[in-house]
Amino acid sequence: MNDPRPPRTAEHATSFSTRLATLAATLRESAARRDLAGGHAAAEKQLIADAGLLALAVPREFGGAFDDAFDDVPRAQNGARWPEIYRTIRTLARADSALAHLLGFQFLQIVSVDLWGSAAQRADWLRGTVEHRWWWGNAVNPLDTRLVAQADGEGGWRLHGKKGFCSGTYGSQMMTVSAHDPATGQPVFAVVPTTRAGITVHDDWDPIGQRQTDSGTVSFDAVEVRAHEVLKRPDTPRASLRTLVSQLVLTNLFVGIAEGALEEAREYVLANGRPWVNSGVQRAADDPYLQQRFGEMRIQALSASLLADRAASLLDAAWAQGDALGADTRAEVSLAVSEAKIVAHRAALDAGEQLFDACGARATAAALAFDRFWRNARVHTLHDPLDYRVRDVGRHALTRELPEPTLYT
Amino acid sequence: MNDPRPPRTAEHATSFSTRLATLAATLRESAARRDLAGGHAAAEKQLIADAGLLALAVPREFGGAFDDAFDDVPRAQNGARWPEIYRTIRTLARADSALAHLLGFQFLQIVSVDLWGSAAQRADWLRGTVEHRWWWGNAVNPLDTRLVAQADGEGGWRLHGKKGFCSGTYGSQMMTVSAHDPATGQPVFAVVPTTRAGITVHDDWDPIGQRQTDSGTVSFDAVEVRAHEVLKRPDTPRASLRTLVSQLVLTNLFVGIAEGALEEAREYVLANGRPWVNSGVQRAADDPYLQQRFGEMRIQALSASLLADRAASLLDAAWAQGDALGADTRAEVSLAVSEAKIVAHRAALDAGEQLFDACGARATAAALAFDRFWRNARVHTLHDPLDYRVRDVGRHALTRELPEPTLYT
Amino acid sequence: MNDPRPPRTAEHATSFSTRLATLAATLRESAARRDLAGGHAAAEKQLIADAGLLALAVPREFGGAFDDAFDDVPRAQNGARWPEIYRTIRTLARADSALAHLLGFQFLQIVSVDLWGSAAQRADWLRGTVEHRWWWGNAVNPLDTRLVAQADGEGGWRLHGKKGFCSGTYGSQMMTVSAHDPATGQPVFAVVPTTRAGITVHDDWDPIGQRQTDSGTVSFDAVEVRAHEVLKRPDTPRASLRTLVSQLVLTNLFVGIAEGALEEAREYVLANGRPWVNSGVQRAADDPYLQQRFGEMRIQALSASLLADRAASLLDAAWAQGDALGADTRAEVSLAVSEAKIVAHRAALDAGEQLFDACGARATAAALAFDRFWRNARVHTLHDPLDYRVRDVGRHALTRELPEPTLYT
Amino acid sequence: MNDPRPPRTAEHATSFSTRLATLAATLRESAARRDLAGGHAAAEKQLIADAGLLALAVPREFGGAFDDAFDDVPRAQNGARWPEIYRTIRTLARADSALAHLLGFQFLQIVSVDLWGSAAQRADWLRGTVEHRWWWGNAVNPLDTRLVAQADGEGGWRLHGKKGFCSGTYGSQMMTVSAHDPATGQPVFAVVPTTRAGITVHDDWDPIGQRQTDSGTVSFDAVEVRAHEVLKRPDTPRASLRTLVSQLVLTNLFVGIAEGALEEAREYVLANGRPWVNSGVQRAADDPYLQQRFGEMRIQALSASLLADRAASLLDAAWAQGDALGADTRAEVSLAVSEAKIVAHRAALDAGEQLFDACGARATAAALAFDRFWRNARVHTLHDPLDYRVRDVGRHALTRELPEPTLYT
Repeated sequence: MNDPRPPRTAEHATSFSTRLATLAATLRESAARRDLAGGHAAAEKQLIADAGLLALAVPREFGGAFDDAFDDVPRAQNGARWPEIYRTIRTLARADSALAHLLGFQFLQIVSVDLWGSAAQRADWLRGTVEHRWWWGNAVNPLDTRLVAQADGEGGWRLHGKKGFCSGTYGSQMMTVSAHDPATGQPVFAVVPTTRAGITVHDDWDPIGQRQTDSGTVSFDAVEVRAHEVLKRPDTPRASLRTLVSQLVLTNLFVGIAEGALEEAREYVLANGRPWVNSGVQRAADDPYLQQRFGEMRIQALSASLLADRAASLLDAAWAQGDALGADTRAEVSLAVSEAKIVAHRAALDAGEQLFDACGARATAAALAFDRFWRNARVHTLHDPLDYRVRDVGRHALTRELPEPTLYT
Repeated sequence: MNDPRPPRTAEHATSFSTRLATLAATLRESAARRDLAGGHAAAEKQLIADAGLLALAVPREFGGAFDDAFDDVPRAQNGARWPEIYRTIRTLARADSALAHLLGFQFLQIVSVDLWGSAAQRADWLRGTVEHRWWWGNAVNPLDTRLVAQADGEGGWRLHGKKGFCSGTYGSQMMTVSAHDPATGQPVFAVVPTTRAGITVHDDWDPIGQRQTDSGTVSFDAVEVRAHEVLKRPDTPRASLRTLVSQLVLTNLFVGIAEGALEEAREYVLANGRPWVNSGVQRAADDPYLQQRFGEMRIQALSASLLADRAASLLDAAWAQGDALGADTRAEVSLAVSEAKIVAHRAALDAGEQLFDACGARATAAALAFDRFWRNARVHTLHDPLDYRVRDVGRHALTRELPEPTLYT
Repeated sequence: MNDPRPPRTAEHATSFSTRLATLAATLRESAARRDLAGGHAAAEKQLIADAGLLALAVPREFGGAFDDAFDDVPRAQNGARWPEIYRTIRTLARADSALAHLLGFQFLQIVSVDLWGSAAQRADWLRGTVEHRWWWGNAVNPLDTRLVAQADGEGGWRLHGKKGFCSGTYGSQMMTVSAHDPATGQPVFAVVPTTRAGITVHDDWDPIGQRQTDSGTVSFDAVEVRAHEVLKRPDTPRASLRTLVSQLVLTNLFVGIAEGALEEAREYVLANGRPWVNSGVQRAADDPYLQQRFGEMRIQALSASLLADRAASLLDAAWAQGDALGADTRAEVSLAVSEAKIVAHRAALDAGEQLFDACGARATAAALAFDRFWRNARVHTLHDPLDYRVRDVGRHALTRELPEPTLYT
Repeated sequence: MNDPRPPRTAEHATSFSTRLATLAATLRESAARRDLAGGHAAAEKQLIADAGLLALAVPREFGGAFDDAFDDVPRAQNGARWPEIYRTIRTLARADSALAHLLGFQFLQIVSVDLWGSAAQRADWLRGTVEHRWWWGNAVNPLDTRLVAQADGEGGWRLHGKKGFCSGTYGSQMMTVSAHDPATGQPVFAVVPTTRAGITVHDDWDPIGQRQTDSGTVSFDAVEVRAHEVLKRPDTPRASLRTLVSQLVLTNLFVGIAEGALEEAREYVLANGRPWVNSGVQRAADDPYLQQRFGEMRIQALSASLLADRAASLLDAAWAQGDALGADTRAEVSLAVSEAKIVAHRAALDAGEQLFDACGARATAAALAFDRFWRNARVHTLHDPLDYRVRDVGRHALTRELPEPTLYT
């Protein structure tokens, strides 16, 4: 691989992680307040853009890898990108899983273009992302069939209707869309600027958690999609990697939530913990049961992170195969993603709950918003039912039959 | 026991449970909205008073048992009251565990007077509760030592300072107080009208759950406590039953939360559930994994309710022994309460979490406030650490040594 | 109910429980040795018979209730028998769940006669059980269809083939049989003496647990069943209570195993426990984590016992309704049995495992056979899959549809 | 590193794994029978020696790496050995965790010599292991203080007394010993031939699991230890890696047990599984709850294996530092080992139990000995209490204080 970049220096070598840590610390400071407020985090999205993170998933050939932010990340010899990308998401998720979600879905839309776009589309939109620092949104929730596409006879479409759960669209510049074509029963995929006439992004996202993901409704009133904006999703194993990229974003958000809750608990106990009256110890940190709870939280979070790292490595290897990627290898990555997601799902919820056992009654003040870890995990772990993911893993463990791609696996 | 009441009629026999069910249904309708709003639930507290529930824990000799609401409750031959009282709390907790808490703590203050009061005090305050439908508050949190008592030389005291976690005091007419006497290092207990000069009840309770329990701060500025208002806590096993009454209130709140979450999940799934795309079933209610989750929720809630019923029966039997109650019997009740509380604690948290696995992503809308079950459970299960309660039960199971009374057991 | 028995005396009032405790202690002494040996426990079965337990489930009118062993059991006013019977099984199961199983299945065969027999059959066989102290065996495993019945044209049958899992038949005097009638596809039920010509009881039971239940194979070589020996199973809810009696036998065996493992752990730790080197305590019994484990074991065993008691009370009430018993009430008992069995199943396995965490490495000596609790529980909890029982409970919890009777519920 | 070995060929590249797989398959065939029989597995130990595995842990400079068996193992560029060694143990443990234990403890004694021996001792004993294919035993259980060392005045000792839990000593040629020196209170370490006069290896190991590890008692009757046989344990972080090597042997045995139980369940269900009568499926393998159980088993086993791999990599990196290894890095490896061991411990026990839920009642036949997975796991997971390991991990997670080396961590 011919890498035209200048050699790395020690100065470079720390700058990305330092910049990321600074960003995470800044987000963490206001995370509780913003969780209570909900709504759109325009300023914080700008901080993410300023840190140079928006194009991490853009291939090097389109300038993504030349972003100086990304350049100094320590990389394995084979140029693996996915483990690094996911660790970046996870780092932000420790501080604020809503904004980390926005970044993860940014990458997901970029991946949609990268995997499904023509050479021209990739060049335009991926390079455009680097140059203009576009934030990407989406309107592609596959379980919501209210958005209808009508062919315009020239290879383009008119879109009518609406979509829910459109994370990141509010405040974005570009977006991916999927609509239902009644004539064929097939979905139509496209990329449009969010400002396209007829598109209205509603500020109607008000859930119990992940409150700043702007996952509201987008409505389309005879929105024009031009022929060159239509994405032709190839019928290849490689094209279906998009689903796995998406599921691994969620997985790493869960890992980040688990790690973040553990860290929050840790700092609170060290700063404010009081030994229980019957414990016989002088410091809360010496309590045998408290130590046990931290042990359990740590083990769950660590297991989840190792499974997530493994899945990212397998994804990376599959990605590197390009169009040669076979269905079986893709299926193995899918299983690895599910295995990681199951453990991360549980780690996030359990850490969000145990945080309170560690910190005690005074930690329930609404202003601290310590419940945001559990609420964020709870909202985000409901995209698809855990039980069917366990079933898929178990079916393979029993029969060795590799699973088919589905909407969520 | 000579019961002067008129014979029960069939009409009477259903009226209490009907009235209770109506009250619970009314509270449930507004529970989500009021959880979001927080603050004081004056109107709902009036509904509870109007339903005739405030004097349930007042002994029959002072008119409590003559309250027509209580009169028609089916009763065991031995006049057992505690199982009925706790089932009443549990029924309300299914709908609204914050208001059920207020009623439970109402009973707890009445019990303080009943167990620790002189004959004259009991007559005055217990009869007064029946006649005037007083709501009782408290300022007795034993871990908060900021409230100081100064002897006035005539058997009374002046109180200075403040107390936190004063559930139910806002909007109450009477309250119990405990303060620290620096001269002896001992606590001083008393009953004062909440309107007593120098008492300020702050509206500063803003937690993540149990939001309408008015558990804020009360400050005391040279508040007068007269000699006849001082409660002399006897040093008897019977006097220490108060702690167990309190812990069993919490236990039944947890049971109610678990049952309420199960019921909420049930109704939502039947009304709105969609079968998962890969499930192969036509109705959500036929999903094997969903049925499994309901099975687990049911079994936990049922186990908790049986343990709580057992503890209530043992408490009732201990109560019936009056001053003859021995330390060992008291300790056995204490263990039974802990055993119930442990299981109920877990049932409430788990049901609050599984509710969402049952209902799916759309159930995370903030307006539904389905997370209130978990948040209510989470706040309320932190009075004392679960781990030490398990330890106490285990120590007895291992060594057969009966535990000493403590602040929480 | 006219009870012709002489009034109880204080001497009577303790003799049954004393006798039972003595029997349990005797069985416990040799339980480890007999578990290792496996095979038939003739001497111990004689001890059970000598203790007067064989006719506990025979109705009073046939002399069962007059057995002096049973006469002095404290009884509820309404003559409830099932709670007492199950507590007897549970007490023996703490010491030896294999022999307790034999006694439980003794009762089950008696119940088959009582529920399904004609007046003459009941008189003969139930009175015969009291008079001759018969041990009952069975060959009725419903999932084994190898035993075939051929009508003899006079209302009787010839049996050919074999049955597996025939608990208690080895060494029995009487047995129940079910065979497949190919002409109708229906089962034929009957009672025959175990010594009937053509019956061979094989000593081929060699499992990993419950090793002395004699649950081997019985083969039938043209065995004659006379017309008066045929049981006509009524198509009534009451007749199907037999299944619930059976499932509640298993449930109480599990509860007994859990309680027995806890007691074994307790005694071992108090006698032999050493504090862990890093624990900082002087006695093993003071170890905080050991106490925690005992707490968890206790809570599980207690929950299981309360659920089992509840199911026994509901069974008793259903039983008392006689032929008036409706399908709905029967279904409610069935659910209660399942709820209890699920919790007891887990309590037995978990206690069998945690026993070792409590006792440490030296407790793994084969001679102690401490693993018998887990092995006994493991063998016995596989009659039917736990998962489907959880499903049934959950389906009802969700839909309120009452389950139909099946082979196991 | 100057590697004098001939270049690898494709033929070589598969031979080790093939040989290992063949050995594992052979051991598995007789594993159930040998578990029931217990005692010494001389023939199977010879198979392990014949497969060339005994010297895997001997450094290359002493010929270990020249063993042709080891030569063809794929290796990371940095020459990492521990991950490969542990994967070898794990592979055998799937089939037979008792014989895998013997091999693991073989490596452990070699490591003792490698870490604690002088240059001459290492040369003699490590080279001797390669040349003579010695099996190594031990008598070093640190909690057993019955073996006493008496100085002979010439740098040697006389040993009197006995040691328990001496895994692998029966049938060994060489052994490590530790004895208590009453004069200093310190332990004396040494290497002696197992045939040394005065040593008696007792065949008294009869536990409920791990039955062929020959972990019986060794008695010493004035056994001579010569000066050149005494091992001087250095007081360095590197020297204390021995404990971690040992703990990671156990960890990988647990992982192997979990994987082996899953595989046994898998094959049994595919070959013999029957769909449950109420399941509505045609094949057992299609049962949704069965698939779920396999999913849970898989996820646990996979998590454990990733944690074990991570610990092995960290151990390898620490090992590579040689005497430069610092206490902090050693402590981090120790934590990683504990994290892995906790998860592997639970995975092994849970898989050993769930195996039966998957396979059903007929799988409890004693001849199958399917309970050996649970029994093996149960015996082996009791070396030290899980709870204190969780505590250590939790204490670090909370306070970031690195743990001191102990006997087990």
